[in-house]
Amino acid sequence: MAKLIDLKTFTDKRGNLTVIEKSIPFDIKRIFYIYGVDESRRGGHRHHKTIQAAICIQGSCHIYNDNGSEQQEFVLDKPEKCLILEPEDWHEMFNFTDDAILMVLASEYYDHKDYIFDRY
Amino acid sequence: MAKLIDLKTFTDKRGNLTVIEKSIPFDIKRIFYIYGVDESRRGGHRHHKTIQAAICIQGSCHIYNDNGSEQQEFVLDKPEKCLILEPEDWHEMFNFTDDAILMVLASEYYDHKDYIFDRY
Repeated sequence: MAKLIDLKTFTDKRGNLTVIEKSIPFDIKRIFYIYGVDESRRGGHRHHKTIQAAICIQGSCHIYNDNGSEQQEFVLDKPEKCLILEPEDWHEMFNFTDDAILMVLASEYYDHKDYIFDRY
Repeated sequence: MAKLIDLKTFTDKRGNLTVIEKSIPFDIKRIFYIYGVDESRRGGHRHHKTIQAAICIQGSCHIYNDNGSEQQEFVLDKPEKCLILEPEDWHEMFNFTDDAILMVLASEYYDHKDYIFDRY
């Protein structure tokens, strides 16, 4: 099952700083960010090994998660709201607002053999 | 000296995906992102050990870098433009646009003993 966590954010008169350090359950090997998305659904796969953390740094999007026995839907709409995605859960991202920037941190380097395209 | 690198970006009709993987010269221990900055200058220090990579994912900001013998100024204004900051270089971030989101990746966990506040 996917799980939301709150990222530590320091706000003062100069602005906001959100930090990710030891707060997610893996070492970060890969980062990607998705932006300028139209009405497409992204994701649509599972993994063998890769754990991921997803944060919508700006705007909002929805994430659907299915671990084979439970289906969840999350709205990511704050830069300090982080969704931890388990490797074998099927996940899809959709309903991106025009200004959405979705950042994803991954526990593994890219490996096409780590992707599973059979959904539950 | 600070150095700009281009991050790999995949663009198709669904949108853009920029990826950071093996393209920066360190393992990522810490991520932070700064947003909602007013006319403040941020940064204003050097490090003993920490290498950093700075990307303005949205909007733009300027980064001043001084390695003791050479002064540089960079404009970060694209999500695929990444500035590598050497540990001992003095750096300051400023001229943030209202919509700017500056992401910084760091090679070390936070340690106040790693900060040097004496500029060149």
